[in-house]
Amino acid sequence: MKYDKFFSDDVGSFMRSPVREIFKKVDLSAIYSFAGGYPDAATFPIDDIRRISAQVLEKYGAKALQYGATQGVPELREVIARRYGVALENVQITTSSQQGIDVCTRVLINPGDVVLTTAPTYLGALQSFKSYRADIRILGEYKGKAKFCYVIPDFQNPSGETMTLEERQELVALAREQDFLIVEDSPYRELRYSGEPVPTIYSLAPERTLHLGSFSKIFAPGFRLGWMLGPVELLDQIYVCKQSLDLCPPILDQYMAAEFMGSGALDANLQKSIALYRTKRDLMLSLLAKYMPEGVRWTHPEGGLFLFLTLPEGFDTVALYDRALSAGVAYVAGSFFYPDGSHRNTMRMNFSFLDASRMEAGIKLLAQVIQQK
Amino acid sequence: MKYDKFFSDDVGSFMRSPVREIFKKVDLSAIYSFAGGYPDAATFPIDDIRRISAQVLEKYGAKALQYGATQGVPELREVIARRYGVALENVQITTSSQQGIDVCTRVLINPGDVVLTTAPTYLGALQSFKSYRADIRILGEYKGKAKFCYVIPDFQNPSGETMTLEERQELVALAREQDFLIVEDSPYRELRYSGEPVPTIYSLAPERTLHLGSFSKIFAPGFRLGWMLGPVELLDQIYVCKQSLDLCPPILDQYMAAEFMGSGALDANLQKSIALYRTKRDLMLSLLAKYMPEGVRWTHPEGGLFLFLTLPEGFDTVALYDRALSAGVAYVAGSFFYPDGSHRNTMRMNFSFLDASRMEAGIKLLAQVIQQK
Repeated sequence: MKYDKFFSDDVGSFMRSPVREIFKKVDLSAIYSFAGGYPDAATFPIDDIRRISAQVLEKYGAKALQYGATQGVPELREVIARRYGVALENVQITTSSQQGIDVCTRVLINPGDVVLTTAPTYLGALQSFKSYRADIRILGEYKGKAKFCYVIPDFQNPSGETMTLEERQELVALAREQDFLIVEDSPYRELRYSGEPVPTIYSLAPERTLHLGSFSKIFAPGFRLGWMLGPVELLDQIYVCKQSLDLCPPILDQYMAAEFMGSGALDANLQKSIALYRTKRDLMLSLLAKYMPEGVRWTHPEGGLFLFLTLPEGFDTVALYDRALSAGVAYVAGSFFYPDGSHRNTMRMNFSFLDASRMEAGIKLLAQVIQQK
Repeated sequence: MKYDKFFSDDVGSFMRSPVREIFKKVDLSAIYSFAGGYPDAATFPIDDIRRISAQVLEKYGAKALQYGATQGVPELREVIARRYGVALENVQITTSSQQGIDVCTRVLINPGDVVLTTAPTYLGALQSFKSYRADIRILGEYKGKAKFCYVIPDFQNPSGETMTLEERQELVALAREQDFLIVEDSPYRELRYSGEPVPTIYSLAPERTLHLGSFSKIFAPGFRLGWMLGPVELLDQIYVCKQSLDLCPPILDQYMAAEFMGSGALDANLQKSIALYRTKRDLMLSLLAKYMPEGVRWTHPEGGLFLFLTLPEGFDTVALYDRALSAGVAYVAGSFFYPDGSHRNTMRMNFSFLDASRMEAGIKLLAQVIQQK
């Protein structure tokens, strides 16, 4: 039986995540993996989770297992509103911040509408934009009409770079002048290892920004919980859309996240995570300096999970990839993060996942693969 | 600031759930509620959940908290494949069976494409179809080209009725003749209180059916977990779509569901749920017979959570609703389940949620409201 005739036009624009395809083929624990965006499992507050899980079932009983409000349980929305200094009505819980990206695109984009992004940018966002057949254009290059601009201002995925206050102010001024919205994706903001925090874009332009937060890097990714801050007029349509997407986010998980964030356990755990990741980032930077051949450059992130390598012109990290994998080391080719697939001499390196004790061997191996080209 | 200009064309077709709007206004525990589709909290296996939660964290550790496969964790897919006698490759885990409906529609429907449904049908499905601007047509009435037909063959929401084997075979024959797919929504199938199980449509036409299952009524709705069985060619595109929807379903919840279903705890709990709901259904039927005025008819479901009342011509359950609520009793007007909003003399009655001890007072009150019309 043939199925192609049944598919909607969107399907023709679906893009498979090359990162998820890599994971299908490879047992990550058997190689030196700088691919993926996995947090270090050592940061998962497993004792807190064990305790909180029992506590929440005791405290809320059946309420933690029943259907709940589409906006999210009030207890979690309140804790987030308090932490980030916003009103309750400006908080929508999302079933993962990926869902946040997807629902924003769904509610804002018709096929052919322009989404502005930086290049490179987050692959999962490109997947979502393409799946709705958006016209993806580069911020700063494209001067026409856009629906929204998607940015990750803090410790960007994949570049690791952070927008300065001036850059944020310029973006806000441009958005106001040209009348587009801003989707500020902010999953790494709380993971700062050096330097000073820069105000969120949401704080600079609350009337036209949808700010996406995530529990994946400050609690655990397995909970698939995020949040969205934004103007009530936009959140209201997102709320209606979310009714038909999944009715409501997982309830027990939400109560656990609320307890974790509200009780101070999150902040205590965050301090430990930051200390661990700072060490890993510093180690990664020193190993790159020690082993990488001349002509290789990389970014120096102040936080987050990634840095970005640029090899000399002529290198092709997509072509290099199979050889790297055979040698036992994995990265993600940087060109996957460019809407046009360019910059084939770049790669994204994750420094959060691999044990610090295994980093030196991994970087050494990668440097050899590059040198043998 | 005006936001209307930013919204996609889909937004104009979004439909607010009248059920969820009711829940916003009313404290369900303060009234006699036959609205909603909430399971009885007494069926939630809270002791199992407490035990399994600790067990799963012990057994899987960080793996239960990390990102996982987009198809779902293998342990849960295997348990489902075994229980329902299908191959692993035919199982996709969904973040709620509502997501299952939504992702089917997303992957199959362009604006204007025809979805066939029965009338009445599930409100959340209508919301999803409308949100993609499908042309919703009634099975049996419409004779033109359709993309898929959506049915709930077992203990339908809202009617409580079950399709006979002959009706299922006829639908399959029609689907093969006219070349459309079937989306078989099956959240209540395991909740049978009398009569004999009828084969699933999926078992009759596995090559053109997407079968949706749910943990909401056999475990707990708060987990937001469901599954989809179908041909690999369809599941493959649904898998790619799901990458950009939410990357993967909640991990800890999936391991808990796998343990619950795989260990036999689900079957033990199901026996108790079935016994409880059978008593409630029988009570509801006898109370309706005792209190409802002449001319009121209702369905006699063999399972599920709902039955459907038809009042004499001239009654308007939408108009009656505010008076019922003031009197302290809630239902959902039946016309909300008709794509064209007709049948305003009907109402959906849920018999799973309200305590058996409060049912008589609730039905008595409702009968009075109807009589005072």
